[in-house]
Amino acid sequence: MRLKKVKGATEKVNNSKYVLLNPEDYKGNFNKVFDNDNPICIEIGMGKGDFIIGMSKKYPNINFIGLEKYDSVLVRAIEKLEDEDDLDNLKLICKNAMDIEEMLDKEIDTIYLNFSDPWPKKRHQNRRLTSEVFLSKYDNIFKNGKHIIMKTDNRHLFEYSIMSFTNYGYRIDDISLNMYEDDTTDNVPTEYEMKFHRLGKPIYKIEVSK
Amino acid sequence: MRLKKVKGATEKVNNSKYVLLNPEDYKGNFNKVFDNDNPICIEIGMGKGDFIIGMSKKYPNINFIGLEKYDSVLVRAIEKLEDEDDLDNLKLICKNAMDIEEMLDKEIDTIYLNFSDPWPKKRHQNRRLTSEVFLSKYDNIFKNGKHIIMKTDNRHLFEYSIMSFTNYGYRIDDISLNMYEDDTTDNVPTEYEMKFHRLGKPIYKIEVSK
Repeated sequence: MRLKKVKGATEKVNNSKYVLLNPEDYKGNFNKVFDNDNPICIEIGMGKGDFIIGMSKKYPNINFIGLEKYDSVLVRAIEKLEDEDDLDNLKLICKNAMDIEEMLDKEIDTIYLNFSDPWPKKRHQNRRLTSEVFLSKYDNIFKNGKHIIMKTDNRHLFEYSIMSFTNYGYRIDDISLNMYEDDTTDNVPTEYEMKFHRLGKPIYKIEVSK
Repeated sequence: MRLKKVKGATEKVNNSKYVLLNPEDYKGNFNKVFDNDNPICIEIGMGKGDFIIGMSKKYPNINFIGLEKYDSVLVRAIEKLEDEDDLDNLKLICKNAMDIEEMLDKEIDTIYLNFSDPWPKKRHQNRRLTSEVFLSKYDNIFKNGKHIIMKTDNRHLFEYSIMSFTNYGYRIDDISLNMYEDDTTDNVPTEYEMKFHRLGKPIYKIEVSK
């Protein structure tokens, strides 16, 4: 996702108590950031934060990290958090997912990928967050079992991801080709998800493990 | 699929030159039925035959077997064939897919599953043609590589089948969650497919191999 530059975004991001400016310093020791040994889950490409904030509120005994490349997007999440009670189980990082292994080491329980950039051109497919390039990076950040939960409205990205996950040895634990026709009691939607669902587009969901 | 009894169906099926009454006699030797060594493909649950007849006409150098449980359905395909030039590369069998290993042994190149009965109740899932029960039967009828191509409009059957195929060790070679939005140049549609496509329902397709 590319957005126009937001004035003051960088400063606001850098001054937020939720933002970790040097996540590399905690590599392998993120439990110290949260000051407990609860499981740690990460959303890669958190966008404006509705999902990761919603999850943090819903599951206080799980720690959440939100990763977002653009400070002009991340700042929207920080503005939302200003209206909330403190969330001790949430940290945000403004970095490129390509560098995830520099920040995390064998400490993640679940990766969430929500409405990721589809990179529709074939020559860009390695940039998709479900490409083998990224799956091999994720291998190094998972603690024990590997567990990825993905939602998207993009059919071609979803088709590609089904193949990429299974060819990489992941087992499909659950899949829905139209999530909102199934039970969505426990679902925490993203901004995009609500928008696309209202437009009548099917939302795809897959849960894989290894 | 269950249809009402069609008067004279059994007799018409038994008298058709396309129908093999005792396929067990050719088990392991179906190349003798076709009198050549061309590849042999089978559609399990061929219904009224549009697909298997269309494929036989389109690919004269491939042999096709159509399997259908109900003679009241198979008779519709036989009636269609009466209006066609002779197809030497097509044979039809009126038997239950459960008994497929009694008829075929290491001689099939590709299995086609089109708009199979979804058996929606979980307690009936072993009856689905993509259940592990059937996948293990198919293992014995494939010649060399295993190759299955499936189309359906039934979302839950498709979701189940993606999981069943990959958990059984199949690799996904191609998948489409809305076939008619992609290139369908080479597609041979079934009766059901045309009906459901006209209703605006997405047609799902998957191609797997092992």
